[in-house]
Amino acid sequence: MYGITSPKGFVAEGTHCGVRKNKSKLDLAIVKSEKQTTAAGTYTKNKFVAPPVVVTKDHIENSNPRVIVVNSGLANACTGDQGINDAEEMAKATAGELNIKKEEVVVGSTGLIGEYLPVDRIKEGIKELIPRLSKEAHKNAALAIMTTDTKPKEAKLTVEIDGKEITLGGMSKGSGMIYPNMATMFSFITTDCAISKELLQKSLSYTVDRSYNLMTVDGDTSTNDMVIALANGEGGNSLICEEDDNYYKFRDALLQLNKELSMKIVSDGEGTTKVIKLTVRGAKTFEDAKKIIMTVLNSNLVKTAFFGEDANWGRIIMAMGNSGADFDPNKVNVFLGDVQVVQKGKGVSFSEERASEALAPFEVSVLVDLDLGSVEATGYGSDLSYEYVKINAEYRS
Amino acid sequence: MYGITSPKGFVAEGTHCGVRKNKSKLDLAIVKSEKQTTAAGTYTKNKFVAPPVVVTKDHIENSNPRVIVVNSGLANACTGDQGINDAEEMAKATAGELNIKKEEVVVGSTGLIGEYLPVDRIKEGIKELIPRLSKEAHKNAALAIMTTDTKPKEAKLTVEIDGKEITLGGMSKGSGMIYPNMATMFSFITTDCAISKELLQKSLSYTVDRSYNLMTVDGDTSTNDMVIALANGEGGNSLICEEDDNYYKFRDALLQLNKELSMKIVSDGEGTTKVIKLTVRGAKTFEDAKKIIMTVLNSNLVKTAFFGEDANWGRIIMAMGNSGADFDPNKVNVFLGDVQVVQKGKGVSFSEERASEALAPFEVSVLVDLDLGSVEATGYGSDLSYEYVKINAEYRS
Repeated sequence: MYGITSPKGFVAEGTHCGVRKNKSKLDLAIVKSEKQTTAAGTYTKNKFVAPPVVVTKDHIENSNPRVIVVNSGLANACTGDQGINDAEEMAKATAGELNIKKEEVVVGSTGLIGEYLPVDRIKEGIKELIPRLSKEAHKNAALAIMTTDTKPKEAKLTVEIDGKEITLGGMSKGSGMIYPNMATMFSFITTDCAISKELLQKSLSYTVDRSYNLMTVDGDTSTNDMVIALANGEGGNSLICEEDDNYYKFRDALLQLNKELSMKIVSDGEGTTKVIKLTVRGAKTFEDAKKIIMTVLNSNLVKTAFFGEDANWGRIIMAMGNSGADFDPNKVNVFLGDVQVVQKGKGVSFSEERASEALAPFEVSVLVDLDLGSVEATGYGSDLSYEYVKINAEYRS
Repeated sequence: MYGITSPKGFVAEGTHCGVRKNKSKLDLAIVKSEKQTTAAGTYTKNKFVAPPVVVTKDHIENSNPRVIVVNSGLANACTGDQGINDAEEMAKATAGELNIKKEEVVVGSTGLIGEYLPVDRIKEGIKELIPRLSKEAHKNAALAIMTTDTKPKEAKLTVEIDGKEITLGGMSKGSGMIYPNMATMFSFITTDCAISKELLQKSLSYTVDRSYNLMTVDGDTSTNDMVIALANGEGGNSLICEEDDNYYKFRDALLQLNKELSMKIVSDGEGTTKVIKLTVRGAKTFEDAKKIIMTVLNSNLVKTAFFGEDANWGRIIMAMGNSGADFDPNKVNVFLGDVQVVQKGKGVSFSEERASEALAPFEVSVLVDLDLGSVEATGYGSDLSYEYVKINAEYRS
C-alpha cells in the first residue's frame, strides 16, 4: 500500500459531492484510523485564519482526532461565524456517521476565499463516503484534496524502531498559495508508530520547519495551511515518550517524508519549469540560514534568472544582503552547481559554458557558504515563468 | 528651467565616456552647486553596500559635498578594496578639475554588479564634462544616469518660504532593482533653500520613508541605492535651523517632490502595465500601515491579479494577514476604486462590472481601512506582467 493508508490501521476514500461544478473532479476526502490515535498539527500563521483551521486546532488541542475530512473547491475563509458553524457541521456529520465525538474529527477546506460551503451537499457526500473507506482508495483521497495541483502528492516510508517495521504515509496538496483565491498547502501524515502526543507534536513542528517552511513557490502563505499528523500505535513498538534513539529515528523518518512531500509541492508549483535547491552552509544559526534561503528563493529577480538559465549571481548576492541574516559579506562564497561564481564576496571569472550546464537540469543546485558557523540548511523554490503570470492573471476573469 | 538645475546656482551635464559600449547611450553625469551647500543622504540597507555608497556616505558625514558625479553601466559593487579606490578616484578627479576637496564630491555608480570600472575613461569623461556644465543640460544628466529606464525622470517644485520663492529640483533613475544585475534606485535632489544640515537630513529621511520606501517594483533592494539632497541657500530665505512653520513648508514640498519622482520610477518599472496605489487608513502606527502596503504590493498573487484586472480581493486579504501588522481581521474593509469588496473582514457581493471599471485605469486605487487608529499612508507598486518575466529572464543570456 502507498500514501496516506500505508501505515497499519488507516483507510481513506475520495468522492465528488458537489462543492465543485465539474463532476469529474473529486472534492471530498476522508481519512480514518480504525483505532484511537494521538494527533498533532501545525497551522498557517496568516492573521486571517480560516474557520476550518480554527476548528481543527481546537479539536487537536482538546482531543485526539482520528478522522480527517477535507473538501476542495471552496476555502471556507473570510466567512465569519457561519464559517465556524459550517466547519463544525462537517465534523459533526462525520462523527455522527462513525459514532464518535465531533472533537475526534479534523476539518480542512481549500479553494476560493469568501464563499460559504454547500454544507448539505457535503453532508450527503460524507454519508456516501464512509462505507467505502478502504486501504486501496488512498489515491482518490489525494485527488480529492487537489485544487490547481496537476498531480496527486503521496509518500510512504518505513523505518525500524524497537525491532518493529514502522510506516509513515502522507498526502499533500498545493503549489504555494498559487492560484488566485485558491488557497492552500495541506499535508496529512499517518503513522502506525506508538508515540506520545507531546513528542508527535514536537517532531512535527521540528520537521515542518525544515521541510515545508523551507520551500516557497510565491512567498504567499495561505489562510488555510495546515499539516496534521495522526499516530495510531498499531506498529507495535513500545510507546516513544522520551527523546531517546527511537524518537530521533522517528523524527528523521518524518523529516524525510515531509521533505519528499514538500519537494512534490514545489515541483508542481504553478508554472514551475525549474526547482532551485538552495543550500546555505557555514551559518551561525538555523534562523540565519532560513532567512537567506527564503529571501533568495522569493526574489523575483532570482526566480526569473533561473527561468532564463542565466548565471546572474549578482541577484543572489543582492537578495542575501536584504535578508537580515547575520553574515560577513567579505567571506561569502557562492556556487552554481559545482561552478564557483563568488569568492570572499567578490565575483570570480568562470566558464559560462559550465555555468549553463549547471543551470540546465530541472533541479538546479545552488550553494552559499557563509564560512562563519557550522549550521547548514537546504530549501527549495520554483522559478518564475510566463506560465505563472498567465495562470495567475487569467484565473478569475 | 526644470529638473536638477531648476534651483538657483545649480548646473549639470551628461556625456558618453565609454563605460558602456553603446556610444549613443550617455553614461556619465555631473551636478554642481556654484556655492557651498549643506548635504544629506539616505542609503541602501543591503548588507552588500557598494563602494560608491560607502564613499558617498563618508563624504556627506564628514564634509558638505556640492558636486555629484555618477556613472551608469557598471555598479562598482562586489569589487572589494579596488572598488573603494575606484570610487575615491572618481571623486578625486572631479575635485581636481574644480579645485575643491575630494570630500566635496559624492559618487554614484549603477549597472552590472561585479565588474571593475574603467577609471581612466571615466576620468577623461570628467575632464571633458566640467567645462560644459550648464543650467540647460539637466536632461542630459538625467539621461546619463539611466540603465534600463525607458525615460528620464525629473521633477521641479516651488514653495514660498519666508517670503521667498524656493525651488526644489530632482532627478531619479531606476525601476526597482529590476534588470538582472542592474542595480539601482538613485534620486538626486537640489534646492536653493537655506536649511541646516541637521534639518535637511531629518526632512530627507522623513520624506524618503514616505515616498521611495513606500514604493516597490519587485521587492528587491539594490546594493547601490541612494537619495542625496544638496541645499545651497541661494533662494534667500533666512536659514531654517529649527522645526518651525518654514521647516514644515520645506518638508511638505520635499515630500511632494519625492513622491512625484518615486511615482515616475514605479510607472517606468520594468514590464509595468499598471500602477497600484494602495492606501491604508485607520492604522495604529505608520509602521503597521507600511507593513501592509509593502506586503500587499510585493505579493506576486496581488501583482498578477492587477495585471489581469481581476477583482481578487482574497489575495489582498491573504497578503495583509501575512504582513505582521497589528490589526483586527474582523474590522477590515477593502475597496477597489469606490467598490467595496470586503466589509468587517467578510466578502460582500459587488458588481463585477463596476469592479472591472475600477481596475481598468493605468493607476488603480485600492483602499484598506483597518478601522483601528488614525494613521493613513499610501504606497505605489507595479503589476507583474509577461514583459517583466521576459526582460528579467532574457537579459544576460
